[in-house]
Amino acid sequence: MNSSAGSGGEMEVDSNKQEIFQRKRNAVLVNGVILNGPITDSKSGEKFVEDACKIIMEEVIQKAADVTEKVCEWQPPEKLKKLLDLEMRDTGEPHQKLLQLCQDIIRYSVKTNHPRFFNQLYAGIDYYSLVARFITEALNPSVYTYEVSPVFLLVEEAVLKRMIEFIGWKEGDGIFNPGGSVSNMYAMNLARYKYCPDIKEKGLSGLPRLVLFTSEECHYSMNKAASFLGIGTQNVYFITTDARGKMIPEELEKQVQRARKEGAAPFLVCATAGTTVLGAFDPLDKIADICEKHGLWLHVDASWGGSALMSRKHRKLLHGIHRADSVAWNPHKMLMAGIQCCALLVKDNSDLLKKCYSAKASYLFQQDKFYDVSYDTGDKSIQCSRRPDAFKFWMTWKALGTTGLEERVNRALALARYLVDEIKKREGFQLLLEPEYANICFWYIPSSLRKMEEGPEFWEKLHQVAPVIKERMMKKGSMMLGYQPHRGKVNFFRQVVISPQVSREDMDFLLDEIDLLGRDL
Amino acid sequence: MNSSAGSGGEMEVDSNKQEIFQRKRNAVLVNGVILNGPITDSKSGEKFVEDACKIIMEEVIQKAADVTEKVCEWQPPEKLKKLLDLEMRDTGEPHQKLLQLCQDIIRYSVKTNHPRFFNQLYAGIDYYSLVARFITEALNPSVYTYEVSPVFLLVEEAVLKRMIEFIGWKEGDGIFNPGGSVSNMYAMNLARYKYCPDIKEKGLSGLPRLVLFTSEECHYSMNKAASFLGIGTQNVYFITTDARGKMIPEELEKQVQRARKEGAAPFLVCATAGTTVLGAFDPLDKIADICEKHGLWLHVDASWGGSALMSRKHRKLLHGIHRADSVAWNPHKMLMAGIQCCALLVKDNSDLLKKCYSAKASYLFQQDKFYDVSYDTGDKSIQCSRRPDAFKFWMTWKALGTTGLEERVNRALALARYLVDEIKKREGFQLLLEPEYANICFWYIPSSLRKMEEGPEFWEKLHQVAPVIKERMMKKGSMMLGYQPHRGKVNFFRQVVISPQVSREDMDFLLDEIDLLGRDL
Repeated sequence: MNSSAGSGGEMEVDSNKQEIFQRKRNAVLVNGVILNGPITDSKSGEKFVEDACKIIMEEVIQKAADVTEKVCEWQPPEKLKKLLDLEMRDTGEPHQKLLQLCQDIIRYSVKTNHPRFFNQLYAGIDYYSLVARFITEALNPSVYTYEVSPVFLLVEEAVLKRMIEFIGWKEGDGIFNPGGSVSNMYAMNLARYKYCPDIKEKGLSGLPRLVLFTSEECHYSMNKAASFLGIGTQNVYFITTDARGKMIPEELEKQVQRARKEGAAPFLVCATAGTTVLGAFDPLDKIADICEKHGLWLHVDASWGGSALMSRKHRKLLHGIHRADSVAWNPHKMLMAGIQCCALLVKDNSDLLKKCYSAKASYLFQQDKFYDVSYDTGDKSIQCSRRPDAFKFWMTWKALGTTGLEERVNRALALARYLVDEIKKREGFQLLLEPEYANICFWYIPSSLRKMEEGPEFWEKLHQVAPVIKERMMKKGSMMLGYQPHRGKVNFFRQVVISPQVSREDMDFLLDEIDLLGRDL
Repeated sequence: MNSSAGSGGEMEVDSNKQEIFQRKRNAVLVNGVILNGPITDSKSGEKFVEDACKIIMEEVIQKAADVTEKVCEWQPPEKLKKLLDLEMRDTGEPHQKLLQLCQDIIRYSVKTNHPRFFNQLYAGIDYYSLVARFITEALNPSVYTYEVSPVFLLVEEAVLKRMIEFIGWKEGDGIFNPGGSVSNMYAMNLARYKYCPDIKEKGLSGLPRLVLFTSEECHYSMNKAASFLGIGTQNVYFITTDARGKMIPEELEKQVQRARKEGAAPFLVCATAGTTVLGAFDPLDKIADICEKHGLWLHVDASWGGSALMSRKHRKLLHGIHRADSVAWNPHKMLMAGIQCCALLVKDNSDLLKKCYSAKASYLFQQDKFYDVSYDTGDKSIQCSRRPDAFKFWMTWKALGTTGLEERVNRALALARYLVDEIKKREGFQLLLEPEYANICFWYIPSSLRKMEEGPEFWEKLHQVAPVIKERMMKKGSMMLGYQPHRGKVNFFRQVVISPQVSREDMDFLLDEIDLLGRDL
């Protein structure tokens, strides 16, 4: 490698093989490869990293706080393929070309840390977790054994311990996973293992039909998990919700009884704390009563809503969560730890995670190591190599303190409240429902529809409004906001407030901009 | 946030609430929170990132090429907890303290990019993938829809296409996953879906016992997958291997027939290309014949060995791989893309991945979008948010070209060959078996044992040698090398050669150092 041709350095050795062979003392040639000395030019490599970091700093990090920058420079797929030089060739590219590629990659990527990126359940830039992520990438650890990841295993332990405290358990266990969906799968499998440990070895064949319960408003990962784990999506019994999207406990009771009558084996209830679309919180305390009565594992998918636990003001949304057997909670969402940072927390303290997941690989988890191998937590995981995701959250927590994290949650929910009030005031905006959390769902009704009666024609026309406004905002690059139809409701916008960079001015802008983009529809 | 107190900036707003409220025009106060303007101080945040990047550059990246640095500064768990300030408090820490913490984190972490880190199946520093990883962290994308990840979805498509070419398929599909273990799970589930699509909805209950076959030398993820997917570890039939660790096809044939006689339902063979400990390659062509004959899905776990496909000289190790139905291949191992970069590749071109995994979440995969939604690949995944891991490999491929990647594989295997020859020459070193790949397994026999007969006492004593040498090398920090017992063989070292920074001198050092550390045993 050198600065003018990326692969040049590694190739040069080859081209002048014989000459170098003569020159070098003790040179060794095996299968046509000279083995003396490294073949990478580390100075040139370091220079490349430095140059690229400068681009990242200028083009991504410094622009993240600037609302006058575009959220994205939209290009359709086929055109973007032409704009980017994606092809991988026989010969490498020089550093100058690679740096240009970095510029292009950044240019055409969506700036998810832009103050007006509201499209998903994560957003914004957190400088502390970002530093932790850069450290992670530079050190390139894998978190399975203490000998390879001493620091990151201790950090994970410390973070899990604090998260467990916030749930309200005296003790517990846990693991960070690549996504809340995976955490939900872990919980489902743990509950199943607890119900019948034999399944680990014998499988489900010949067993009665296992059934689990979750609300109609649950995340789609419940279906994915049931399918992946061999339980089957038909054995996910969806419980009716009330008008605010909360599971109705009486309906849960009925469904558990129905499953029993069918001769099936109910084993798990998955409640949701902060549903994806509406941001609804299931009534955990009442659900816990039913779980207790029927001996069912209670898992709470608090991937999105879990962060409310950090706020003394808002933690009541999760009242009863301490009664759960397991909780999924993603600090990469409202607490901005960066994709991905997702904990599964388990109340059991009998090493259930390890019993359920262990495969005891002798090449990794040797028992005759010279240190306390209880720190080798890799056998709690379905993964082999695993990233130190807890570290990102830890760094932010260290930097802001618990009160700083609380402040973020409080501010996001206050901004959500402000937006709701504005929506109520403004003509042409209609709230779907009073939000409990940071999801604000609303319709924009263009003036052409404002006088129309709310019949089938009205809804059909309204359904087409959000996609057009979305297309226009994407092409303009002014902001990003999601829309969806949902359970009989036609397309509506879902605004999500997260980042502390976001202010009241951005909320006003959001409504102004939707009106501007959709006025003529 | 400001430079003297991490959480100060966010808190300050709060403390002077009333004053600011008076001063600001149009100030809005909701639930005690002032909503005007962002509460992060972006300048101070950027400065913190810059300072931290300087530390990362000096302490990690520039030291990565220096063999005189320690691979790790070993501390036992309880002592390390005291050395690090891990506790998360109510109040945040100032930037200066945080930067010191970054220094400490780095100091006590294992330098997996040190030229003498040989402990796992990944190692070294690749400056190109590192830059891609920094870009990823700064942009913080999630790869599920084109609207949020336009560039990274196209990059993934391009990389998968080239990997599919190297396998030798005309077409195919694929997805990048958080680890080879997860890829193996995907394959197992895909094979099961292909065998009986009803399982997705109905589950395994009431179905005949599904059975899969893999070698005794397979990765432990096979057991984890069988357990997680509800198949059960007892239904993994392990096939005897030959002395080199390769699956014996005749034994596979026998086991398939046995399963049929038992009334079970064989559906899958998982062959391994590059086993974890011995680096053995199963005879894919012969195994493919058996799969064809019995109508079984053939999955090849080439997580480790797949990279040999990049070398015209060594790709014959995987002869027959084009006949596989699916392949797991991790460029984060020999091709140094950074933890994690793991592809599952599927030969089927009928959208099987999507059919098997889809849950059709209407809030994410709206069908009325204004662009071609076939680019929204998120429904092929068990994850919701997913990292753009393909991008890391793409950047290295662009930089080195195919020939540069080939060079790396050739050099690693030439170095492995050199080490084998040296082991044979040196007294006190004994090779377990002739390696096929970059795993060199050997015993070090201290002089006290060299004259002893190879009876039970000899083996018992030899078993204790590697752990002691490992402890000594960890405490010295001179290098890191794995050991394990394996299938009746007492503890032996497994040396793995990957990084182009590694040279013949490091191989000599490795043997000298083991001798130095173990001489007195």
